[in-house]
Amino acid sequence: MSYLFTNIRQLIQARTIAPEKVAGKEMANLPCINDAWLRIEGEFIHTFGQMNECPEPGNDHVIDLAGKLVFPAWCDSHTHIVYAGSRETEFVDKIRGLSYEQIAANGGGILNSAAKLHQASEEELFQQAKGRLDEMIGFGTAAIEIKSGYGLNTVDELKMLRVIKRLKENSQIVVKATFLGAHAIPQAFRQNRDGYIREIIEQMLPVIAEEKLADYCDVFCDKGFFTVEETDMILAAAARYGLKAKIHANELDYSGGIQVGVKHQALSVDHLEYTGPAEIEALLASNTMPTLLPSTAFFLRLKQPPAREMIAAGLPIALATDYNPGSSPSGNMPFVLSLACINLRMTPEEAINAATINSAYAMGLSQTHGSISPGKKANLFVSKDMPSYAYLPYAFGSGRVHKVMIDGKFQIFEC
Amino acid sequence: MSYLFTNIRQLIQARTIAPEKVAGKEMANLPCINDAWLRIEGEFIHTFGQMNECPEPGNDHVIDLAGKLVFPAWCDSHTHIVYAGSRETEFVDKIRGLSYEQIAANGGGILNSAAKLHQASEEELFQQAKGRLDEMIGFGTAAIEIKSGYGLNTVDELKMLRVIKRLKENSQIVVKATFLGAHAIPQAFRQNRDGYIREIIEQMLPVIAEEKLADYCDVFCDKGFFTVEETDMILAAAARYGLKAKIHANELDYSGGIQVGVKHQALSVDHLEYTGPAEIEALLASNTMPTLLPSTAFFLRLKQPPAREMIAAGLPIALATDYNPGSSPSGNMPFVLSLACINLRMTPEEAINAATINSAYAMGLSQTHGSISPGKKANLFVSKDMPSYAYLPYAFGSGRVHKVMIDGKFQIFEC
Repeated sequence: MSYLFTNIRQLIQARTIAPEKVAGKEMANLPCINDAWLRIEGEFIHTFGQMNECPEPGNDHVIDLAGKLVFPAWCDSHTHIVYAGSRETEFVDKIRGLSYEQIAANGGGILNSAAKLHQASEEELFQQAKGRLDEMIGFGTAAIEIKSGYGLNTVDELKMLRVIKRLKENSQIVVKATFLGAHAIPQAFRQNRDGYIREIIEQMLPVIAEEKLADYCDVFCDKGFFTVEETDMILAAAARYGLKAKIHANELDYSGGIQVGVKHQALSVDHLEYTGPAEIEALLASNTMPTLLPSTAFFLRLKQPPAREMIAAGLPIALATDYNPGSSPSGNMPFVLSLACINLRMTPEEAINAATINSAYAMGLSQTHGSISPGKKANLFVSKDMPSYAYLPYAFGSGRVHKVMIDGKFQIFEC
Repeated sequence: MSYLFTNIRQLIQARTIAPEKVAGKEMANLPCINDAWLRIEGEFIHTFGQMNECPEPGNDHVIDLAGKLVFPAWCDSHTHIVYAGSRETEFVDKIRGLSYEQIAANGGGILNSAAKLHQASEEELFQQAKGRLDEMIGFGTAAIEIKSGYGLNTVDELKMLRVIKRLKENSQIVVKATFLGAHAIPQAFRQNRDGYIREIIEQMLPVIAEEKLADYCDVFCDKGFFTVEETDMILAAAARYGLKAKIHANELDYSGGIQVGVKHQALSVDHLEYTGPAEIEALLASNTMPTLLPSTAFFLRLKQPPAREMIAAGLPIALATDYNPGSSPSGNMPFVLSLACINLRMTPEEAINAATINSAYAMGLSQTHGSISPGKKANLFVSKDMPSYAYLPYAFGSGRVHKVMIDGKFQIFEC
């Protein structure tokens, strides 16, 4: 099947040759074509241009997109969508002023999700996660990374990773799997941290490698979670099994997480609320993608990561949802862009680059995803009528996605 | 037509006798029935109860709502949805650090909307506003107040009010009209404020009263806009024409707006970012509804109004969207509830009371709207599957509305 889209008001992120990532001042550069055409051939983007040079349609299916914009689909490089049940009770506890520690003492937090996950069958987990994944496609997302980390024991971590594998096999979109056994210290190991880390390294990693259940390895390197030394040990072990690092860092403190991530050539370090000059310097000397998760900072009322300082220093930034039941119960990428503009003071150009080209990089998809470029997958969405791309983050509460195309096929989704 | 809804997981705000408003500690009380039935007869709510006492359906159309919740529809008591075009350019200017004054100097702000409105025909204005209104119905809103205030001269203010009148006549939902000639001092009167106030009082108000174009009169009583004395004069004149006050106050400073509103027995005073002990005391001695607009504080990065202190002092609170192109380009009431919980630390119970019973009061609709009560209008929405009402503000980025019923009729809307 081939398509010719005509009269596109604005074709966003149209690059004949796309860079792997964009950093610093380059993030302000968002190539767009006004009054454009776009040709899709099979699964792939073929060519594009301005309407005054529109080709004859031939056998193409022609779609007039007057008034509408075409965006490359989002890449969501950090999520935890395999979980059982929601955690709105803790949301209310936090409003009432309970501390993180009190909530944990009431059985809340990551350990709450671990307990619920332990009870749930693979089938239940798959069905719930598939529902979330389909909702995310409706927001214009065409690639998603999913982490384990609510298992916290060998059996349950493998259960989660098998659910993610099933999602890979049964979804229209690309799914990347990340092993996050080191998400929290489970209750049973509170007095024996080393014992849990040994379980991760000696029990979990070999099976995961053997069954090819993960693309990446993550560690929550932060105050109250895993130390730099523990992180170092786990990432070194993961590397021996061929798993690249992609970690949680500096959400709660200047934890050293960014530096240990860079040391292990992590594909990305994520969260980064606590990023100062030393962290920026480490990142500048690396190929690691700094990834911000503004929904989490919004929902947990955290301090905001210093996006402007990072861009001014010449760093790239990627954006993702962090969709999870405790700190970001939302898979809405357009809203992540609104938050990036409102709370992080990123411009619409920077936010769109961060959620497409750079987040594709952060999940190893630079070759196929993240821009409207000849030869890349035809993963895109058509907006509702809007004057320009800046309207998308501006109209923060509105549904802004009209139709989503994955690998050259229009999707039907419940919005 | 009569309906019997069965197996409702949770029927929210179910009150056999509903109070006019709820204040202080009472705001934490949200009467709900789990596993409920609800009977609708014609336009009205008839009866409700628990499934173990469900009546025989007779000729009722039975709808099984297993897994779903039924909420009373929202009342949105403060909007400016009659406007021409959007203002995402200013949104970007603000990200780039331009001040309010610089943006105004570039032709931005309220005067930007005034210039665009002046150019637009009544038909264009009507079509754009109708699109916004229909979108809001899709978010579960069944009553909306709309202000003039982008005219800023007699001809254009009347044009706006006539568009609002046409919306009243052509919408399924209740529309209340508020005259806001005193939204800003127009350019031509910068050196002659008194001249503009005379135009409001002597030219605009008589025609508005004669043609019955408004239900309420508003003034933007704040730093850089209208003084207490000017507000006093305008509200006194409006009262002579039978228009109740409903004003903008204390968004930008301790402006005295709350006190002058209370003096004129305003139905509501809205915004209230700057509310201290004196303002709370004035409100406690009044029947005026303090109305918070958290989308605006979010979008403009303002300080948050002290909702917790206000409730602790015994005040009621109402919530509204403030939908407008400059400071709140969103008509999404569920998201307003998320912001109320996240940024104002209101509990879900308080937020739901604020957006139903109390916002109905703030637009004079206590008798017919704001709760699931026998004899009130059957204005409600059915949620998507969710475990309880707290899920609605918690899942901040998701579409949570499944079907909307207005006056006993299910609506079809594009989501």
